[in-house]
Amino acid sequence: MSIKMTADDLRAFLQRDFTQVADDFEFVSVTEEHVIMALAASDQHLRPGGTVSGPSMFALADVCAYFCILSQLGPVALAVTTSCSIDFMRKPAPGLLLCRMELLKLGRALAVTEGRLYSDAAPDKPVARASLTYSIPPRG
Amino acid sequence: MSIKMTADDLRAFLQRDFTQVADDFEFVSVTEEHVIMALAASDQHLRPGGTVSGPSMFALADVCAYFCILSQLGPVALAVTTSCSIDFMRKPAPGLLLCRMELLKLGRALAVTEGRLYSDAAPDKPVARASLTYSIPPRG
Amino acid sequence: MSIKMTADDLRAFLQRDFTQVADDFEFVSVTEEHVIMALAASDQHLRPGGTVSGPSMFALADVCAYFCILSQLGPVALAVTTSCSIDFMRKPAPGLLLCRMELLKLGRALAVTEGRLYSDAAPDKPVARASLTYSIPPRG
Amino acid sequence: MSIKMTADDLRAFLQRDFTQVADDFEFVSVTEEHVIMALAASDQHLRPGGTVSGPSMFALADVCAYFCILSQLGPVALAVTTSCSIDFMRKPAPGLLLCRMELLKLGRALAVTEGRLYSDAAPDKPVARASLTYSIPPRG
Repeated sequence: MSIKMTADDLRAFLQRDFTQVADDFEFVSVTEEHVIMALAASDQHLRPGGTVSGPSMFALADVCAYFCILSQLGPVALAVTTSCSIDFMRKPAPGLLLCRMELLKLGRALAVTEGRLYSDAAPDKPVARASLTYSIPPRG
Repeated sequence: MSIKMTADDLRAFLQRDFTQVADDFEFVSVTEEHVIMALAASDQHLRPGGTVSGPSMFALADVCAYFCILSQLGPVALAVTTSCSIDFMRKPAPGLLLCRMELLKLGRALAVTEGRLYSDAAPDKPVARASLTYSIPPRG
Repeated sequence: MSIKMTADDLRAFLQRDFTQVADDFEFVSVTEEHVIMALAASDQHLRPGGTVSGPSMFALADVCAYFCILSQLGPVALAVTTSCSIDFMRKPAPGLLLCRMELLKLGRALAVTEGRLYSDAAPDKPVARASLTYSIPPRG
Repeated sequence: MSIKMTADDLRAFLQRDFTQVADDFEFVSVTEEHVIMALAASDQHLRPGGTVSGPSMFALADVCAYFCILSQLGPVALAVTTSCSIDFMRKPAPGLLLCRMELLKLGRALAVTEGRLYSDAAPDKPVARASLTYSIPPRG
């Protein structure tokens, strides 16, 4: 399936529709296979000890899954998260936290995504895995 | 099982160990059956339209589950979220967002919690359900 | 919400449409609040030691959730499981294994259920918890 | 991480310790990266229309995850499923149903696996995805 929105398209969408969190996230790679985003962690994302918090990891997975769907569906503002399963496996190392999401299914009413979070320094030791389902609006 | 920490104990623990988010959450009820907490939503928790964001709901479920375990385990700072399954079912109504968590199992190595998020105005129409598992440190 | 199918209605539906597993499950209680079903465990459901297997517990949760939806939706054969999150917490005791499911949401396209599995002998020590989502066909 | 049990080792273990289901499953591939198993579907695994049932897909994911852990942990009979999240995405096509599982984490007390189920005929259109967590006994 070819992508309908490039990294630049998605970035513009993020900045316009998600003003409050737009500065927290960066697009690293947008292809037919995946979307990779990074969390630009600031104090509010960290727990004592400098570790990225669970809710910040959830937020990264959620936004990355959302834009993974949009990259293939086109600019539809109405996709809504209906469920998430997330496993936290390792403490994130200091440095950039990345998330790579794949679109497993783009159905009539539901889209299913799956991906992993990992530290820039140790891509082979995932920090977390997550699968998210989105309800998508009826299409033409 | 009787509780080992009261609402006052838990509140002190929250304010000391979770400085950055302590003002976001309030204890509503702490009993042998459950812990109920509320999200004091500010701008950073809201999406366009004034709805509480998914990551903020996750954060409320996570903190409520954590303190539900601590209320029965005692003041142990080392419980760590290992997994969460969450279903978002309805858009939160304006007003206070509450979470009621129960401890289903307190095992040797794992604690399992389950609960629901609901708007103050419509307690019978849950906004979300969540189950969370925590790894707990070996005890004496 | 009032129920549209009684235990007798559901039993007839089970026997007609799920011939292969109809003898494995019994209806214990069907109300507006919940559906409770029991697994009539035979050799094929047991693991060495006589414990009910994980897949058999999954099957009980799945069928109980399905009939919980049907009890409120009416006789629609087309609801399809889209996801399940299940936590196994304790080894089932010998004796009857029960599942109590609640319908948390009956939406336009999705139904969300949640419940617990427990041994007849220890209803307060759940063996497992499960939440299941079903895709439901468009209605009139 | 190198494997501690080959496909032959795992097959012998399956036949000895899981007598009742040993004939239902086949080992297709056992490497450092993954374990792939197939369901030899018989009548009891099928729903009306000849589709593999949800519980049978759960059983395949569960057994494949179990042997994926054992392949790297060695012959330990005591790993126990603690949780599973599974998304059913497409109807399985007739023919062989396969499951490919990866071990994402082998920790002190928990092992986390993730994988996909797919029909032999359409490996790029997964039928389901699943993540499973196992409690593993203390080692040496």
